Amino acid sequence: MTTPSFPAGAFADAAARLSPPDEAARAEAEALHLRLTKPPGSLGRLESLGAQLAAVSGAVPPPVPAPAAVAVFAGDHGVHAEGVTPWPQEVTAQMVANFLAGGAAINVLARQQGASVVVVDVGVATPLDAAEGLVDRKVRAGTANLATGPAMTRDEAVQALDVGAEVAADLAATHRCLVTGDMGIANTTPSAALIAALTGRAAAEVTGRGTGIDDVTLDRKAAIVGAAATRVAGQGPLDVLAEVGGLEIAALAGFIVGGAAARLPVVVDGVIAGAALLVAARLAPDVLGYVIPGHRSVEPGAAAVLAELDLTAVVDLDLRLGEGSGACLALPIVEAAARILGEMATFDSAGVAQKDV
Amino acid sequence: MTTPSFPAGAFADAAARLSPPDEAARAEAEALHLRLTKPPGSLGRLESLGAQLAAVSGAVPPPVPAPAAVAVFAGDHGVHAEGVTPWPQEVTAQMVANFLAGGAAINVLARQQGASVVVVDVGVATPLDAAEGLVDRKVRAGTANLATGPAMTRDEAVQALDVGAEVAADLAATHRCLVTGDMGIANTTPSAALIAALTGRAAAEVTGRGTGIDDVTLDRKAAIVGAAATRVAGQGPLDVLAEVGGLEIAALAGFIVGGAAARLPVVVDGVIAGAALLVAARLAPDVLGYVIPGHRSVEPGAAAVLAELDLTAVVDLDLRLGEGSGACLALPIVEAAARILGEMATFDSAGVAQKDV
Repeated sequence: MTTPSFPAGAFADAAARLSPPDEAARAEAEALHLRLTKPPGSLGRLESLGAQLAAVSGAVPPPVPAPAAVAVFAGDHGVHAEGVTPWPQEVTAQMVANFLAGGAAINVLARQQGASVVVVDVGVATPLDAAEGLVDRKVRAGTANLATGPAMTRDEAVQALDVGAEVAADLAATHRCLVTGDMGIANTTPSAALIAALTGRAAAEVTGRGTGIDDVTLDRKAAIVGAAATRVAGQGPLDVLAEVGGLEIAALAGFIVGGAAARLPVVVDGVIAGAALLVAARLAPDVLGYVIPGHRSVEPGAAAVLAELDLTAVVDLDLRLGEGSGACLALPIVEAAARILGEMATFDSAGVAQKDV
Repeated sequence: MTTPSFPAGAFADAAARLSPPDEAARAEAEALHLRLTKPPGSLGRLESLGAQLAAVSGAVPPPVPAPAAVAVFAGDHGVHAEGVTPWPQEVTAQMVANFLAGGAAINVLARQQGASVVVVDVGVATPLDAAEGLVDRKVRAGTANLATGPAMTRDEAVQALDVGAEVAADLAATHRCLVTGDMGIANTTPSAALIAALTGRAAAEVTGRGTGIDDVTLDRKAAIVGAAATRVAGQGPLDVLAEVGGLEIAALAGFIVGGAAARLPVVVDGVIAGAALLVAARLAPDVLGYVIPGHRSVEPGAAAVLAELDLTAVVDLDLRLGEGSGACLALPIVEAAARILGEMATFDSAGVAQKDV
């Protein structure tokens, strides 16, 4: 567990179960890589990913990390009232309907990979009708305005962390890889505030244009981010999360820890998941060994998280959509890393000569 | 056709059939992207790839570029005698056997994508037994030593170009995407020589460690590359190819042009395919609209080709294996680009509000 004072619940349980990845399995995978029919190191990142999958699962070769499950956590944000985005708040609920109908980008990308998509309402402002594929775990109908006070209570933040950990445990029973997804109009603002607060970086450095805003709006957004980060300076990660975070961000932090506790690779998406990952890593540092950063978002906060945690994204395709789209694009590469270890011939088995030394 | 004097054959026919991609279809795809349920431009490179696939096929949405076929062109190199690599020359034939048995990296990666692998012997030094999946189109049993004279005759280079164009035409009948593959111990040396000669860059700038060589070998290799490039300065692309190229490189150039003539996307691999692409682009410039650079190899010559042709690779995973491995890893992303255009809902169809303008 992270701290003795952390409130009991699914998140605390997951954090308590979490242990570092299996370094012996990682070393065994690295040794196997040297015997496969290719020059040593020639598969680059695919080799380190394969070794990580071995460490995560404790098996060499690691199981193929499929099928994957994308959990799209949806929530609204009181800070929307500050005019930080040109998109109406009801788009969050409309996009949830789009996810459930299978028409969003994440549906298309997940379908291609044979991954399932689960949508978790952890804090959408609008009431949502029950539907197949929608998990109703609403903690509250959107956060309060973080520009004028705490986004949520500490207890609500813990509830959202628990939701994420429970969803991860449920999906871990039937999937071999978890993928973070998110939906919430205005959610790059709390993400940037969390990133600024937890990394100490300047607001202007971590605040981006999100879905596309003009210069005036960007300045307003950065001012809100800066004031929020200043307000929580010196507080612990749970308090920072409650004060300037978001419900879906808290749930994602719980989801990441829950996936790691189940010893599954967790492929994380862009800036929203990055903010959640920062929170997760502060609450339960061992989580990092289980995390694979799927893509490098163009949002500056995403790059700040990768730099802060010394992580390199699998793909870099100039995406800034969220939903889990970038992480989903990394899945075939992650899967390939496992298949290379499991299916390639060795120099001995294939009768291929090695290089003269 | 490229020049009136180019020898008749499958390559010349393909070059004559080649026309620029369909810009009206590209524009239509770009317009469709603005109506899909996502912020404009938020899918980044996936959007430009989708528009390219529309231009390549002349259809919106473009057909899903699957199944793909990887053609692994294999050849040996007389320059091996100069000690440019620590790997024995017989590894080329041994790896061909490994490809045919399904144990190499390219087999694993192609299998995962549902892509077929065809191995074409265009110049392996060792005699090869007939086998399923092996296409015998040997032009000669390895090139001559490019350090001491022409690697091949102009006629042999044309024969190899024709082999590539014919293989592309054959595969185009049953596949919707072509992938370049290569095998040839020492083939980063002729590739670097071609790249230096055709871009005017210094040998030291485009010569790399290939499968892994020490500093002394690297210096020797760069000296050979530099002398070869100097020798062919001012010659046309076909003469440069014959003088300092390789049989599998020539075949790959023909394959790229053949795929483009069939209006298929051609996903190119690393430095060997990059050298071939340079040759193809000089002989038939319209080919570039059909080419998708699959990955950015760590070989410096690969980066030089991308810069010279103003191309950006889809993935960058520190690979330096060849075989088509990097290109194969890009296939799911290329496929996703087509699926996004074909499967996503529009704002109208999904009832999602757009941003306030």
